[in-house]
Amino acid sequence: MLRLLVTGGTFDKEYDEIGGTLFFKDTHVDEMLRLGRCRVPVAVETVMLLDSLQMTDADRLAIAARCRDCEETAIVITHGTDTMVETAAVVARAVEGKTVVLTGAMVPYAFGSSDGLFNLGSAISFAQVLPAGVWIAMNGTHFRWNEVQKDREAGEFKRLR
Amino acid sequence: MLRLLVTGGTFDKEYDEIGGTLFFKDTHVDEMLRLGRCRVPVAVETVMLLDSLQMTDADRLAIAARCRDCEETAIVITHGTDTMVETAAVVARAVEGKTVVLTGAMVPYAFGSSDGLFNLGSAISFAQVLPAGVWIAMNGTHFRWNEVQKDREAGEFKRLR
Amino acid sequence: MLRLLVTGGTFDKEYDEIGGTLFFKDTHVDEMLRLGRCRVPVAVETVMLLDSLQMTDADRLAIAARCRDCEETAIVITHGTDTMVETAAVVARAVEGKTVVLTGAMVPYAFGSSDGLFNLGSAISFAQVLPAGVWIAMNGTHFRWNEVQKDREAGEFKRLR
Amino acid sequence: MLRLLVTGGTFDKEYDEIGGTLFFKDTHVDEMLRLGRCRVPVAVETVMLLDSLQMTDADRLAIAARCRDCEETAIVITHGTDTMVETAAVVARAVEGKTVVLTGAMVPYAFGSSDGLFNLGSAISFAQVLPAGVWIAMNGTHFRWNEVQKDREAGEFKRLR
Repeated sequence: MLRLLVTGGTFDKEYDEIGGTLFFKDTHVDEMLRLGRCRVPVAVETVMLLDSLQMTDADRLAIAARCRDCEETAIVITHGTDTMVETAAVVARAVEGKTVVLTGAMVPYAFGSSDGLFNLGSAISFAQVLPAGVWIAMNGTHFRWNEVQKDREAGEFKRLR
Repeated sequence: MLRLLVTGGTFDKEYDEIGGTLFFKDTHVDEMLRLGRCRVPVAVETVMLLDSLQMTDADRLAIAARCRDCEETAIVITHGTDTMVETAAVVARAVEGKTVVLTGAMVPYAFGSSDGLFNLGSAISFAQVLPAGVWIAMNGTHFRWNEVQKDREAGEFKRLR
Repeated sequence: MLRLLVTGGTFDKEYDEIGGTLFFKDTHVDEMLRLGRCRVPVAVETVMLLDSLQMTDADRLAIAARCRDCEETAIVITHGTDTMVETAAVVARAVEGKTVVLTGAMVPYAFGSSDGLFNLGSAISFAQVLPAGVWIAMNGTHFRWNEVQKDREAGEFKRLR
Repeated sequence: MLRLLVTGGTFDKEYDEIGGTLFFKDTHVDEMLRLGRCRVPVAVETVMLLDSLQMTDADRLAIAARCRDCEETAIVITHGTDTMVETAAVVARAVEGKTVVLTGAMVPYAFGSSDGLFNLGSAISFAQVLPAGVWIAMNGTHFRWNEVQKDREAGEFKRLR
């Protein structure tokens, strides 16, 4: 059994056709797992639905606490890309002996041409086979939490040397 | 560097609007890697474009030969689901010291609501971290080639015994 | 109030992921009207779900009877393109004083890149403003039932001279 | 021959994955006409790419001038919905003897589940058969420019009594 903690991010944003803005309603993770015909047992839990630029220290601690306290030892976290690395660091300080994989998307799943489904398949796979530790799975690659940063201009994650 | 061998399957089928039938034109793998913002270097090579029910022994041997002869030690094969396990067995007899991951889709990528992108993210991830051997990555899971079969009625892959 | 008679055709076909074939389950017209934010009152009625190559004379008479007997004077029929012109002729002999517009699609709506939504918007619009008679609305154009044929090689409808 | 004037609006917005905002790059109208297998000859011309809340009087006069000066007598304008009615009024004062149909979308075409394709099919159809005058085609309906307003809370167009 794998636990999937939803925290928001571009991944789950939708278009509000009345206001013409982006917003959160519900997570799309269940629909995405159905679309991917995923048969790995996954317990999906929405911890929060936030743009990661708006996450506070308290939010990150709450996410880390859920990782530590849940029963499962394989965990995927969907998260906004802008502060994914910061949250990974907080989780790494709080959790031991578990494989935690953070992932996200550059384009909302609801917009039809998203990287979200690819990243979800990637994160769920890495979570089952990587050793204990905190990882980021983006762009088809896995990075240890302390060897990666987001290149905001390129919109991708890069290994620190 | 990862090598991706395209062999066809539902994954790459398209709708022929003149004849009202399904057919192969080109692979969609490059477009899918772009959509997934994949930054892992992947050498994509179309070996054949076949419905896996029409594959012959010679076809399977040709696939196995490409796995053996290419430079890369991490290989993903996109393949029809119906005889994926048969091809995996042929590859297993021919290849040593490489991680080969077969994947596919239940619905064509071109039809908009496919499991293909999820499976591709999954297969590329498993190919980077699983030990040498021949694996099948479907439904979010990885199976050794000799411990899985397709349940045709359910349309999913299941572990033997 | 406009009546929409569903008869099948490529428009409503779906992909059967177990058998790898195309089939009919339910019409997608209600979903398409919702997607199009259509606010014209439309009474949707499924008369049959058939590939139009399999329609019999009795089927065409049944469609014509529904056109004649329903209350509405503006009617849209979704229909396979291959014999759309034949059905239009049968309807033209049976119905007077009503505007009947047949439409269809070259690609199933369920496949994501369909002409169906465009054609549905077109047919519903023509049905509200064209004079009484039987019309075919395809490719953005309207044709009287007796001045059009399908060019099967090009996959489009062309005016007879 | 029909002229289609592109002015922007939600219809043509895209998602900027670096900034996480909506923006204009190019119009999607050509792709949409291809998808709809439209065979009506349409001359597509991008006049501007603006959110209609940002349109000035000068912009509206420029649009009206293009309607008046072009050769065609059947014209479709794609336009943001928020001030579509204001532009329609300006066009109505400037143009005589032509059928001008304004349309738009509540959801960007690029987001996959848009009303844009339905509305485009509708507008192109109405432009071919409605009498000279300025019309708005939204929600499957046509309205004279001076008998309609947008209900911003409901996100739809309603007839003034």
